[in-house]
Amino acid sequence: MQYDVIDGRISPNGSLDVLSRLEVGKLLNASQGELYPLFRNSSLAVLNYGGYLDDGRELLERYKDFDIRVIQEERGIKLDLRNAPASAFVDGKMIRGITEHLFAVLRDIVYVDDTINNNPRFDLATSDGITNAVFHILRNARIMRPGTPPRLVVCWGGHSISPAEYDYSKEVGYQLGLRGLDICTGCGPGAMKGPMKGATIGHAKQRIYTGQYLGITEPGIIASESPNPIVNDLVIMPDIEKRLEAFVRVGHAVIVFPGGVGTAEEILYILSILLDPENSRIPLPLIFTGPASAAGYFEQIDHFITDTLGPAARQMYRIIIDDPETVARKTLEGVEKVRQFRLKTDDAYYFNWMLNIDLSLQLPFVPSHDNMRSLNLHKNQPPHLLASNLRRAFSGIVAGNVKDAGIRAIEEKGLFELCGDARIMQPLDTLLTAFVEQQRMRLPTSTYIPCYRLVADAGA
Amino acid sequence: MQYDVIDGRISPNGSLDVLSRLEVGKLLNASQGELYPLFRNSSLAVLNYGGYLDDGRELLERYKDFDIRVIQEERGIKLDLRNAPASAFVDGKMIRGITEHLFAVLRDIVYVDDTINNNPRFDLATSDGITNAVFHILRNARIMRPGTPPRLVVCWGGHSISPAEYDYSKEVGYQLGLRGLDICTGCGPGAMKGPMKGATIGHAKQRIYTGQYLGITEPGIIASESPNPIVNDLVIMPDIEKRLEAFVRVGHAVIVFPGGVGTAEEILYILSILLDPENSRIPLPLIFTGPASAAGYFEQIDHFITDTLGPAARQMYRIIIDDPETVARKTLEGVEKVRQFRLKTDDAYYFNWMLNIDLSLQLPFVPSHDNMRSLNLHKNQPPHLLASNLRRAFSGIVAGNVKDAGIRAIEEKGLFELCGDARIMQPLDTLLTAFVEQQRMRLPTSTYIPCYRLVADAGA
Amino acid sequence: MQYDVIDGRISPNGSLDVLSRLEVGKLLNASQGELYPLFRNSSLAVLNYGGYLDDGRELLERYKDFDIRVIQEERGIKLDLRNAPASAFVDGKMIRGITEHLFAVLRDIVYVDDTINNNPRFDLATSDGITNAVFHILRNARIMRPGTPPRLVVCWGGHSISPAEYDYSKEVGYQLGLRGLDICTGCGPGAMKGPMKGATIGHAKQRIYTGQYLGITEPGIIASESPNPIVNDLVIMPDIEKRLEAFVRVGHAVIVFPGGVGTAEEILYILSILLDPENSRIPLPLIFTGPASAAGYFEQIDHFITDTLGPAARQMYRIIIDDPETVARKTLEGVEKVRQFRLKTDDAYYFNWMLNIDLSLQLPFVPSHDNMRSLNLHKNQPPHLLASNLRRAFSGIVAGNVKDAGIRAIEEKGLFELCGDARIMQPLDTLLTAFVEQQRMRLPTSTYIPCYRLVADAGA
Amino acid sequence: MQYDVIDGRISPNGSLDVLSRLEVGKLLNASQGELYPLFRNSSLAVLNYGGYLDDGRELLERYKDFDIRVIQEERGIKLDLRNAPASAFVDGKMIRGITEHLFAVLRDIVYVDDTINNNPRFDLATSDGITNAVFHILRNARIMRPGTPPRLVVCWGGHSISPAEYDYSKEVGYQLGLRGLDICTGCGPGAMKGPMKGATIGHAKQRIYTGQYLGITEPGIIASESPNPIVNDLVIMPDIEKRLEAFVRVGHAVIVFPGGVGTAEEILYILSILLDPENSRIPLPLIFTGPASAAGYFEQIDHFITDTLGPAARQMYRIIIDDPETVARKTLEGVEKVRQFRLKTDDAYYFNWMLNIDLSLQLPFVPSHDNMRSLNLHKNQPPHLLASNLRRAFSGIVAGNVKDAGIRAIEEKGLFELCGDARIMQPLDTLLTAFVEQQRMRLPTSTYIPCYRLVADAGA
Repeated sequence: MQYDVIDGRISPNGSLDVLSRLEVGKLLNASQGELYPLFRNSSLAVLNYGGYLDDGRELLERYKDFDIRVIQEERGIKLDLRNAPASAFVDGKMIRGITEHLFAVLRDIVYVDDTINNNPRFDLATSDGITNAVFHILRNARIMRPGTPPRLVVCWGGHSISPAEYDYSKEVGYQLGLRGLDICTGCGPGAMKGPMKGATIGHAKQRIYTGQYLGITEPGIIASESPNPIVNDLVIMPDIEKRLEAFVRVGHAVIVFPGGVGTAEEILYILSILLDPENSRIPLPLIFTGPASAAGYFEQIDHFITDTLGPAARQMYRIIIDDPETVARKTLEGVEKVRQFRLKTDDAYYFNWMLNIDLSLQLPFVPSHDNMRSLNLHKNQPPHLLASNLRRAFSGIVAGNVKDAGIRAIEEKGLFELCGDARIMQPLDTLLTAFVEQQRMRLPTSTYIPCYRLVADAGA
Repeated sequence: MQYDVIDGRISPNGSLDVLSRLEVGKLLNASQGELYPLFRNSSLAVLNYGGYLDDGRELLERYKDFDIRVIQEERGIKLDLRNAPASAFVDGKMIRGITEHLFAVLRDIVYVDDTINNNPRFDLATSDGITNAVFHILRNARIMRPGTPPRLVVCWGGHSISPAEYDYSKEVGYQLGLRGLDICTGCGPGAMKGPMKGATIGHAKQRIYTGQYLGITEPGIIASESPNPIVNDLVIMPDIEKRLEAFVRVGHAVIVFPGGVGTAEEILYILSILLDPENSRIPLPLIFTGPASAAGYFEQIDHFITDTLGPAARQMYRIIIDDPETVARKTLEGVEKVRQFRLKTDDAYYFNWMLNIDLSLQLPFVPSHDNMRSLNLHKNQPPHLLASNLRRAFSGIVAGNVKDAGIRAIEEKGLFELCGDARIMQPLDTLLTAFVEQQRMRLPTSTYIPCYRLVADAGA
Repeated sequence: MQYDVIDGRISPNGSLDVLSRLEVGKLLNASQGELYPLFRNSSLAVLNYGGYLDDGRELLERYKDFDIRVIQEERGIKLDLRNAPASAFVDGKMIRGITEHLFAVLRDIVYVDDTINNNPRFDLATSDGITNAVFHILRNARIMRPGTPPRLVVCWGGHSISPAEYDYSKEVGYQLGLRGLDICTGCGPGAMKGPMKGATIGHAKQRIYTGQYLGITEPGIIASESPNPIVNDLVIMPDIEKRLEAFVRVGHAVIVFPGGVGTAEEILYILSILLDPENSRIPLPLIFTGPASAAGYFEQIDHFITDTLGPAARQMYRIIIDDPETVARKTLEGVEKVRQFRLKTDDAYYFNWMLNIDLSLQLPFVPSHDNMRSLNLHKNQPPHLLASNLRRAFSGIVAGNVKDAGIRAIEEKGLFELCGDARIMQPLDTLLTAFVEQQRMRLPTSTYIPCYRLVADAGA
Repeated sequence: MQYDVIDGRISPNGSLDVLSRLEVGKLLNASQGELYPLFRNSSLAVLNYGGYLDDGRELLERYKDFDIRVIQEERGIKLDLRNAPASAFVDGKMIRGITEHLFAVLRDIVYVDDTINNNPRFDLATSDGITNAVFHILRNARIMRPGTPPRLVVCWGGHSISPAEYDYSKEVGYQLGLRGLDICTGCGPGAMKGPMKGATIGHAKQRIYTGQYLGITEPGIIASESPNPIVNDLVIMPDIEKRLEAFVRVGHAVIVFPGGVGTAEEILYILSILLDPENSRIPLPLIFTGPASAAGYFEQIDHFITDTLGPAARQMYRIIIDDPETVARKTLEGVEKVRQFRLKTDDAYYFNWMLNIDLSLQLPFVPSHDNMRSLNLHKNQPPHLLASNLRRAFSGIVAGNVKDAGIRAIEEKGLFELCGDARIMQPLDTLLTAFVEQQRMRLPTSTYIPCYRLVADAGA
């Protein structure tokens, strides 16, 4: 099959276009620039807006001839594109939002290379060092808005959801937008797009022209979850763990829509943090919501959490079915509590410094067959650490489903094995089977073949 | 039935809030202010957003206790509302867009009273005088944007359309918005809302924060077509004819979606202008469009036009079915031709001074039983004048269907009678019957009972 | 002598450029446009920036070939200039501030003609009608800033002052600007320019980019007091009385620097208002100030006021010599009192509606020989009315000194005669003689020859 | 003597206030924060606006009790000040421009520490590495404005100049401002303040609200040349050499007003660059100008340059006496040539990458007695390297005159010795003697005692 491509040269419109000669050199071309492959592939993902793919490799194969180069000109830099996906253009002109995303990719790749990596100031083996790096990347991307009161709502949920779930997420976004709340998502399709679209209309009616639609992604996920052009602040974190940390440090509330294993990973990540005894005083509203048709889905999630992490975990969230207005109102109330807490404790509105995030949640988890197999999925640990290990398990499944490296690993070495206590493996099996049945594993273009095998301990 | 109401006090955020003591006096209260009834009722219509009603009287009866007063305070004026429809508020705070609309109502009512009416400078009995008044009202409302190239697309169509037609109008708006085009409508629901919503998303993706969503209404229509809060420039013209003139003077292209008699009135208005020999050189793109399901509808319209106005009228528009991208691209091309023509002739981009509008299209048509009956609906006149008379006929039917005064007149004196040449009355009957069958006459809440009777001349 | 001239075509940059065809017609050319002479001469005055002349006629003679035309183009109107004074241009391009002033002249001339004159809504024979007209002209010029707290300081004083006085007025302006206060003056040279220049630096240091430098002028004075380009809001009132009313309605405090008869006229105007019993409760801070060298000058003024209006008049102002910081601080305190009063009384911050202005101060005073001679300059009237009559006397002398019509009248009919009570005429003589000696009557380019003769009543 | 002091807490208004916990920690207090002394002393210098001192030590002694702390609050950071110089405040509120400068100091100190120092990415021993660091510091300070055409004029000259010279520099700034040019200076008093003040008025008349007044300083000079609050972009470079490089990389033209040894250092720096054969094709307009009274001064400079560097050096600049308009026009022409050159060579408008700067001009020169004595001041080297060595000689004298470390060194070890060829030492002696006589060495508060001794080689 042939895909429409287009050539073009684009300029930034902000101040992102000031690169040093050294930085330009690193990006300049395929053969020499050390950052070039990362830059090229992330750019391609950004350009492939609308043509969602579960398999990141397919994208690279479709647009083999795609090329992008940095051009130094008198007014700053430009990007020269060859054989770019045509969907990024309207009548031959690139959609402005996509242009911005390309320059955001450029900015973040250059910054991480230049300032974070190999700089002794950032010790990426410590919790504080990682948090500091996350902060610096976000600050460099100018996505924190000091001086404004808390209003950023993180919306999680699947990229592959039903039309009813999608419309519902839009309606929730609309109600949030009417209340002046901003949206932060993983910036792909489905539940990551609906709330932003809805909020755009809500903001328009409230004459809010500065609404923030923040997308936080990372190189491994961007290919399958190309940012929606509504996203007007995009940041590419270096890895999935820093991406998750970015969400909870900048967000003032979290809403979870129906989703699949990626969403489950996010739920376990946030529960691990909220169950951490050190965070017991810190408010962070967490709401699970969906249309009436999603009631069963959240029951399953609720059961899984209770069965594995215990009933205390249930206190960390509230489930609201089919009621966008209540979701928005409760979110606003929760955000107000966050505001008062930060005010009282002099913690920044724009970055949740106080939240303790365990190093096990921060260190990049490489989903190798060995690492997956040796995950501790037993009850012999505090709930927040079990949640952390379950997070890793789901993260590995996401990789096996949609990430380039994960898919290759499965092809080479067979299924991932997850071993653990039957009281954990049993609920896990139930949940994952339900995901498969409900076609929540991948975009429903093909029959899903699991990438994992669950092994319950005999004597646990 | 009880309707939720709310009290509130609102401030403007622009510079509209500077009123003289004299102006405040006229608006101040029900018993003394001469402008008060008009101001109150138009304000109520603006507040009733979302609760569309075909019968303007019903609105007034629902909110009998509604009251609105102008308060002079140190920072300017405020509006004090009692028993206002609750739908205009979110968590007790009025939606900002609706606030703006209330102040627009205030601004236009005061201006027309103060500067246009009874000012010898404006001779409202002449074509030039009326055009001058239209210009002054629009200028005072600051809705013309000098210095910007042409990009305002007038979208006409019914407020009572099918979901498929509505979604289609949204998609067309989206494609127009992606191309940087702005939207102007009659600012009610249906085809007047869809294009604006779509364009909002298109503009957001193109980072256009200054998109214009212009609503042009008039006191008689506003009650049944309450402005959508997306409308960010609202102007209330004194009557339907000045409203129609405003559309064609400020718009750079016209797109017609499916609609009913109101839409037919608009089509005949624009055709009367385009068929006027004096306008033969002036470009004004006119496109009829709808989803596949609307193909039959536009065939009917096409037949009616050909049968009554002759085949030449057919050259004035292009019908495009089920192809939003082509609609947007052709509109853009047409707008570019308009731009070049204005450039060449030194006519303003923001006001089509050169267009000749016959006085018969400008003078307010009062749809009394006598006036309706004596309309010349014969072929003994140039096509553009026949179109003008047909426009009046449709205008009368709109009044009989949804306007307060019209409904009362029908109740008192029976059906309107329209008399004319059988070669005109026959196609007219066919068209109106189709409208009734397709539920295009009113919102489909009740069975439609016609307000007119057609009488064909024996010997014509 | 030959004066440098230049041709050019200029565009506005705001929204002032939207004129109707009718309005353009009236301005279009010398032979037909009824407003043309006023527009041409006022425009010439604006262009003659820097080349101050006391005699308005000289300007017209210097630039006999000057011509200005309104051009209608696609993006709005432009102004086409021939043989314009070269000082308005830098390297052939007109200074932006002067461009704005030209369009302000155009705007106000068109508005007064179109909306105020001959409009039965404005009864210019009544006090309320005149105030309403003043309000409408100011509103149309968009110079009132609703929503902002009071901060506009009116600075009066001579256009012909010493370098020490000029530097002092600059320093006062600097201190006002540092405190966030804005400046309003008659917009000519000298004490009308210094405070604005100083405030510009003060605002720059405080990062105030929206500082208002409001100039209020009128056709008779503009030729000899060409607006300084720093003025960023210019309004041309129809006559001297509406200009004075504009000052006191929009200003929140008044500072008087040394000046001549024009300044004396302004002092008597404001004293007449402050002495009016109806205004006894209304705060309006009034400060007379100058450098040490001006101490004597203000003593003379102080004596004159006490001698003619009585010691009570002395309570209306405060004299501060050689202390810009105290002037600024006291002004700020006074403005704060104004703010609290308006807040309490719900009077607008941007327009002092409550202030009573006697009709005798509002009706245009024509300084004919008869009118001058018949002024009541006796003690048989309340002080505020005597002040009003003295204001007229000074106004006539200003006309005889620098206004075209006044100079002609003196040339034709001899000196103006002012008759009155010796207890008034004596102090008046002393004051005027001092003005002559101190070269405060005109720019010190020539010996001043008085245009008046004082006649004291025998038996009064 | 007692100096007025004041306490206060200030907030930034931009996005500079986002600091990480680590960064806050380093600044937090005197005993622990490693950056604290630098931050405190630079802040004190910024606050001491208006009270110019030649001796940096005096400042520190005057305000021994001054303290500044970073406070983390919910909306970002604030600065808490104790015993700050009262001159930075108006009625107890800090002047906004000074607030911005304090946060600029904070920003640059943190950035240099965090990103430049000890980061292996920046090799500060190489020419490219230094240039890269300069670029990064400027980029982080957001003072480069990509997308805008060249218009930044570097104005050099003394902080201790005569009133006539000061007024002249203001007039030149006014003429530059009228032509839309921006100003960059070392941001102290005298010739560093005049052009900015003048340009402020010029910009105001041209309605340029975004004019750039860029101040480039460094910790060693800031105490004696406290930034003028008009400076709206301030950057603190780590040392004098990076400061000089910043000037020539971002400026598009250089104007030199009369000055002393600091100005001589700047002249020799720019001549060393312009005489570098590698830069022969690169345009960089250089104008020496002053009022008529300064004609002799520039003759001396001219002679000195010709005598030491040869007649070719004379081609690098143009001397214009007493003609601000011509200076501005020639500057504009020169800037236009720069624009065309950058356009042709695709070099950035905002950073002169192509200019070769010899490592001898970039490496920080420590003016120790040894280093001063061993400077090669002979003719046995290319003119551009001799210029570089002479630049160091003047730099050392500046340090001995006004910098803390320099003054101490002289007190301890006696006068600096400069040795060289008599054909160089002779003109140098003449020039320095003239500076002393004209009181150009320091602020004329005391008799100047030289900090150097010149030694001419016997046989050279």
